[in-house]
Amino acid sequence: MTVVGVDLGGTKILARLVDPKTGTATGRAKASTPKGGTDDVLDKVIDLVRELDPDGDADAIGIGVPGQITSDGVVTRCPNIVGWDKPVDVRSILEKALDRPIAVGNDVNCGALAEFAVGAGKGQKDLLAVFVGTGVGGGLILDGEMISGRRGYAGEIGHLTVTPGGRSCGCGLNGHLEAYAGKSGIQREVERLDAAGTPSYLNDLVNGGRMKSSHVAQSVEQGCDVTRQLVQDAADALAQIVGNTATMLDLEHVVFGGGLIDRLGEPFLDQIRGSLSFGGFGRDVCELHRAKRIGDAGAVGAAILADRLLRTTS
Amino acid sequence: MTVVGVDLGGTKILARLVDPKTGTATGRAKASTPKGGTDDVLDKVIDLVRELDPDGDADAIGIGVPGQITSDGVVTRCPNIVGWDKPVDVRSILEKALDRPIAVGNDVNCGALAEFAVGAGKGQKDLLAVFVGTGVGGGLILDGEMISGRRGYAGEIGHLTVTPGGRSCGCGLNGHLEAYAGKSGIQREVERLDAAGTPSYLNDLVNGGRMKSSHVAQSVEQGCDVTRQLVQDAADALAQIVGNTATMLDLEHVVFGGGLIDRLGEPFLDQIRGSLSFGGFGRDVCELHRAKRIGDAGAVGAAILADRLLRTTS
Repeated sequence: MTVVGVDLGGTKILARLVDPKTGTATGRAKASTPKGGTDDVLDKVIDLVRELDPDGDADAIGIGVPGQITSDGVVTRCPNIVGWDKPVDVRSILEKALDRPIAVGNDVNCGALAEFAVGAGKGQKDLLAVFVGTGVGGGLILDGEMISGRRGYAGEIGHLTVTPGGRSCGCGLNGHLEAYAGKSGIQREVERLDAAGTPSYLNDLVNGGRMKSSHVAQSVEQGCDVTRQLVQDAADALAQIVGNTATMLDLEHVVFGGGLIDRLGEPFLDQIRGSLSFGGFGRDVCELHRAKRIGDAGAVGAAILADRLLRTTS
Repeated sequence: MTVVGVDLGGTKILARLVDPKTGTATGRAKASTPKGGTDDVLDKVIDLVRELDPDGDADAIGIGVPGQITSDGVVTRCPNIVGWDKPVDVRSILEKALDRPIAVGNDVNCGALAEFAVGAGKGQKDLLAVFVGTGVGGGLILDGEMISGRRGYAGEIGHLTVTPGGRSCGCGLNGHLEAYAGKSGIQREVERLDAAGTPSYLNDLVNGGRMKSSHVAQSVEQGCDVTRQLVQDAADALAQIVGNTATMLDLEHVVFGGGLIDRLGEPFLDQIRGSLSFGGFGRDVCELHRAKRIGDAGAVGAAILADRLLRTTS
């Protein structure tokens, strides 16, 4: 069995030919995400699928989208893709064009599913996956099932409150995990500190551009105290929210992925472990792992989602 | 169909004859919880079931226990019942004595199930129930299924961290919800304040005894500023943790029960609502309700658990 998995992002689209049982991904097709609206974007997705699978051999197509998706495959909200200003029935449109079963999922949930099925969470029944990059996203699997929530909003771990009234978050509220652990939040804080009279190696390095994970890693290596404190704040915030989620749901395993995790590596995970505490009975019994499917978790997870759809409908 | 539901507590045992479809509870038998060890406790449970249902007409028996339960009905930990110092196979023991199917659940989870099936959460598919009394417990239902966790630890909402390093919690750690919102935590804080030179009407009222919900309610009514602040702290802590849980799981409904909720009533729920914020996309769309099954939720929920067991095994 072969399935096409598509990871639709704000800047690029990646499609892969996947064996959903093993997670082995073979062919690859990619393109920049069109800026001309949803018709252009979905036409490009269709082109990539046809490029990758010209004879239509794939049994199904899965697509991960950075937005909210109903259980019918309608994308109701997708703020990171230019021109996505109204709900679009992605499943119907792709089904019509490609004449095969289509699964539509949230991109972060797809990444979590890839780690669960063929990555660092393989063999588990429950898994929380946390992706730390520009923002912070999460995907939750309980008893083998993706938890999407009744309205498709579940997993928004980046917008859980660490400190009421704390650092301002990109969503407009305050004190959220993403404001402490996401690159955009770290950048806002380092710029605020600089403006308030605390310059830093990190702020000089970014120099008004867009902060990269490598900037943070380099500043830590250079011994920048401001950066080290900000990284510790990020670890503390992740530990608080992940510890709470693991306690509430009795989780045994959490997988961490995303650009900042990839660059800061195991020492950063150790900082999170050091701040982690588990309340009540579930104390000290949750393991943290690094993600294994670096780079293609979204596409592979979308393919696995499509494979699951085939299994439940056949 | 009739089922016996038993609520086994640290001080008393309550058994009720329940129609699990409607939640209507008829007969009632109760006793103090024996202090002589688990054999005595389970003998008393068996006596109460026979007293309530002398002809053995009930189709099944459910029991809610304040501890950790494996999926096989073994109670591995039960700190609130005197002499429960090792795992006990409650299901096998009761099955042998009563010769009918036995369901064993956590008492708080049973309470949540009662609210879900026949109480304030009736008609919903997902529900978080939070019980605020001496401690703070929670029960979570997703897509109609009780989330117990792989090791039976799920739902320990009282031991989620509000403020790292904050008020000391009865579990030995710090900053947990229970330390801010449970009566035992409020009592420790009011005694600490008194010792540190801030006396209060509430501390005088409790006068070294055990704090009751009525003490808190009376102190609020008397205009005690210390109590009012502690109640606001409790509302803020509940809002933070419930808001986070609702955001993570995309919950639309949360039910609040327990002694402190019953006594402080709707004004307290309004304080929680006032502090509540929802991150990311799920903003402002979670309703808080008061529990409906006051007093017998544990027994009724245990009966519903037994009814569910019958349905899945028949």
